[in-house]
Amino acid sequence: MKLKEEIINKLQARGVELSDIAEVAYHLQKPYSKDLKLEDCLVAVKHVLEKREVQYTVLTGIALDILVEEEKVEGALAKIIREDEPLYGVDESLALAIANIYGSVGFTSFGYLDKDKMGIMKELDTTKEQVNTFLDDLVAGVASAASAKIAHQNKNKELDEAEIS
Amino acid sequence: MKLKEEIINKLQARGVELSDIAEVAYHLQKPYSKDLKLEDCLVAVKHVLEKREVQYTVLTGIALDILVEEEKVEGALAKIIREDEPLYGVDESLALAIANIYGSVGFTSFGYLDKDKMGIMKELDTTKEQVNTFLDDLVAGVASAASAKIAHQNKNKELDEAEIS
Amino acid sequence: MKLKEEIINKLQARGVELSDIAEVAYHLQKPYSKDLKLEDCLVAVKHVLEKREVQYTVLTGIALDILVEEEKVEGALAKIIREDEPLYGVDESLALAIANIYGSVGFTSFGYLDKDKMGIMKELDTTKEQVNTFLDDLVAGVASAASAKIAHQNKNKELDEAEIS
Amino acid sequence: MKLKEEIINKLQARGVELSDIAEVAYHLQKPYSKDLKLEDCLVAVKHVLEKREVQYTVLTGIALDILVEEEKVEGALAKIIREDEPLYGVDESLALAIANIYGSVGFTSFGYLDKDKMGIMKELDTTKEQVNTFLDDLVAGVASAASAKIAHQNKNKELDEAEIS
Ligand SMILES: [Ca+2]
Ligand SMILES: [Ca+2]
Ligand SMILES: [Ca+2]
Ligand SMILES: [Ca+2]
Repeated sequence: MKLKEEIINKLQARGVELSDIAEVAYHLQKPYSKDLKLEDCLVAVKHVLEKREVQYTVLTGIALDILVEEEKVEGALAKIIREDEPLYGVDESLALAIANIYGSVGFTSFGYLDKDKMGIMKELDTTKEQVNTFLDDLVAGVASAASAKIAHQNKNKELDEAEIS
Repeated sequence: MKLKEEIINKLQARGVELSDIAEVAYHLQKPYSKDLKLEDCLVAVKHVLEKREVQYTVLTGIALDILVEEEKVEGALAKIIREDEPLYGVDESLALAIANIYGSVGFTSFGYLDKDKMGIMKELDTTKEQVNTFLDDLVAGVASAASAKIAHQNKNKELDEAEIS
Repeated sequence: MKLKEEIINKLQARGVELSDIAEVAYHLQKPYSKDLKLEDCLVAVKHVLEKREVQYTVLTGIALDILVEEEKVEGALAKIIREDEPLYGVDESLALAIANIYGSVGFTSFGYLDKDKMGIMKELDTTKEQVNTFLDDLVAGVASAASAKIAHQNKNKELDEAEIS
Repeated sequence: MKLKEEIINKLQARGVELSDIAEVAYHLQKPYSKDLKLEDCLVAVKHVLEKREVQYTVLTGIALDILVEEEKVEGALAKIIREDEPLYGVDESLALAIANIYGSVGFTSFGYLDKDKMGIMKELDTTKEQVNTFLDDLVAGVASAASAKIAHQNKNKELDEAEIS
């Protein structure tokens, strides 16, 4: 099985469909791209998940959530991750590495999502059934990167049209 | 004149009082610290501005705004900064270096502020009289760092109290 | 047990004494501070390990090394971490969050250490007895931050003396 | 004139040919890719310079060097940049945003280059004729990103071959 498929399977097993992430990206980018379609966002999300850096980071974050859930993490760290201690920042560091894969414009989307959780992120944040300390931020990171990718594409199109005319 | 005073003077000359930044930090941190006073935020803002890394970054960002305003920056870059081109991310990179001076918890505040501009940031963003491409992000960065500092202080206090009892 | 003690114990259990980290910091900073003593570096290392952000990150990285070693991590990720796959960058992302806790001057020390492993880092990198994919980078991150702290202290002293004279 | 050409011209005017950057990238990546050719590195450097984020950052850094040189930057900042004050980290922050455009594996190359300046970087660092505080780091950032791009390409090729056989 290729790594990308393993990740898509793992996301599904944790309750996240690619279309859920695409919806978050759509919400982020819609104000700036009036013709944006949900389908474009799904394509962008798939592109983001093809980056090896993103794949490795998503796998690591999901593994940490699961290992805490299965009580395989020892000592103080288990409690810190399980309770999503407000000063624990590793989840955000990982997600930020994903969010800025298309440049620093992904930063701000990510921070915004973190404060104003929407769609699948809200579900992940409120469920009590599994540990999602990393997962909600990973979703935010991938959605932010997808939104940044679309922003760059639109700018390129705009510049190309300016050159033609 | 010490560097910190030079920075406070420059911020004032550009229309930003330390109390304006304290208000943004207050707004960020209030939901998590019910006894928070504006005065605590002002103290935290002053602490942040004592960090040399922060001082150098603030000076650089303000200088770029002014140099563009005075038409001393040449070529494509002048227009990009003046119009705050959406894909220009240097302002956010600089601000982020400030926001995370107390750890990665400052990231998310910064991103949130950038999307949901409040108080002085809104004024800076809408004025047509000067170039504020860097300044609004610098304010967000300093306010985010001040808010993170208070979050850390509260956590330390909480841990100390837990140990005593 | 306080978190800092838990971390010192864990580092020791994985083969790293604080004095080993202090030696790396000494090596980094010595060219810039001729009167530097190993003792100063040990003090700086202890200061770095008092930062909650650093504590959380060190605990997370060590946990991942151990979980891979104990075969508790599943799928492709286990092999990627175990073999320290050259394109796996999560270890470096975590270490970088530590290295820049005193500003971006810690970046370059960290990158340098990663390429030119010295002292304890060389030992960690060549041992076959345990998984150290995260640990060597965490050591580099803490040593880089300690070196940055000393650099800032020296600069402050220099400025104070300039003001007196 | 397209932005990419404006940047190539500016780099040349400051004494940097793309082939100089390609040589630094070659030096970085050669130990890991035995069949690497200088021509491959030049192609990678050109790819890096097509990224808008990189273009904007390079333009900003070069502008700051020139503005300091032309004495258009006022106050303490001019002296700090001109003398490349060791604790000034904005140049490294900008370069790092470039270096990690293909993921965090670019970090370590960048830090290494900063400590062990080679080729064009050494020339830039020792010349007294112009201010190169930003330029040497920008070159390191672009070379690191180019080297990271080649590392990713090689990995992809390796995986493709593994799938075929
Ligand atoms: Ca989280
Ligand atoms: Ca801005
Ligand atoms: Ca490693
Ligand atoms: Ca420099």
